[in-house]
Amino acid sequence: MTVELIERLTHRGLTVAIAESLTGGLLCAALTEVPGASAVIRGGVVAYATDLKASMLDVPHELLDTVGAVDADVALEMAAGVASKLGADIGISTTGVAGPEPQDGKAVGTVFIACVWGKKRVVEELSLSGTRNEIRSLTVHAALRMLASAVS
Amino acid sequence: MTVELIERLTHRGLTVAIAESLTGGLLCAALTEVPGASAVIRGGVVAYATDLKASMLDVPHELLDTVGAVDADVALEMAAGVASKLGADIGISTTGVAGPEPQDGKAVGTVFIACVWGKKRVVEELSLSGTRNEIRSLTVHAALRMLASAVS
Repeated sequence: MTVELIERLTHRGLTVAIAESLTGGLLCAALTEVPGASAVIRGGVVAYATDLKASMLDVPHELLDTVGAVDADVALEMAAGVASKLGADIGISTTGVAGPEPQDGKAVGTVFIACVWGKKRVVEELSLSGTRNEIRSLTVHAALRMLASAVS
Repeated sequence: MTVELIERLTHRGLTVAIAESLTGGLLCAALTEVPGASAVIRGGVVAYATDLKASMLDVPHELLDTVGAVDADVALEMAAGVASKLGADIGISTTGVAGPEPQDGKAVGTVFIACVWGKKRVVEELSLSGTRNEIRSLTVHAALRMLASAVS
């Protein structure tokens, strides 16, 4: 899937930036695994600590203070912020609870992924089960599908 | 190795930030695979496009214009920059040529990894062979060893 996705982005002349929390770099790593990815992948920010979602991705402090880090609007702001900061056409993001402990009152496996491309804003909530690594991996695959769908 | 490394960082109360180029998020993903990593891993920046090494990590433009992206001093500036930007005690970085094509006049497999912890600055040049994914994976392991050695 990733090879075809990079080919499609290249063909359309689109660039992508990635903002990650629970996936910790796995989504950006999956996209840059493909030779020639440098033509379309600008880079990414892993805002693992919550305060970095504000300082590195311009997610409003008030939003984080109100809803915590695991939230649909936070995912959308992360995607919009990374596209803006890194100068990409499309921003894609992940935030959620990989476990083993709940976070900000959200259960393990609660995940939000978002994609922002200009005025087009898509966000999806996932309820995943499995180990920490399974939840991270399933999140990466869902985000790749969301990106593929956005540019299909 | 990663579990022991996270334990040691936790025990010493140290935080880490990661700046990546060719590894594209794999190093940060490896460190955040461990449960409890959030206590020590602040986050990271994947500055895949060369201009992001300047805009996101404060690597001097003049340096990048002179030596390109694959260079010992660039690796050191990336590590120092990410530690400063993300507010971490220790910064660790990777930059190099994963292939399949040479970059900035550097051969495939030429890689620099660096670790900056206050005034302590360590950089290492690697000459790796293998596929694109093998070179990325070997770089991650070398960087983890460098970080482990720094805090041993």
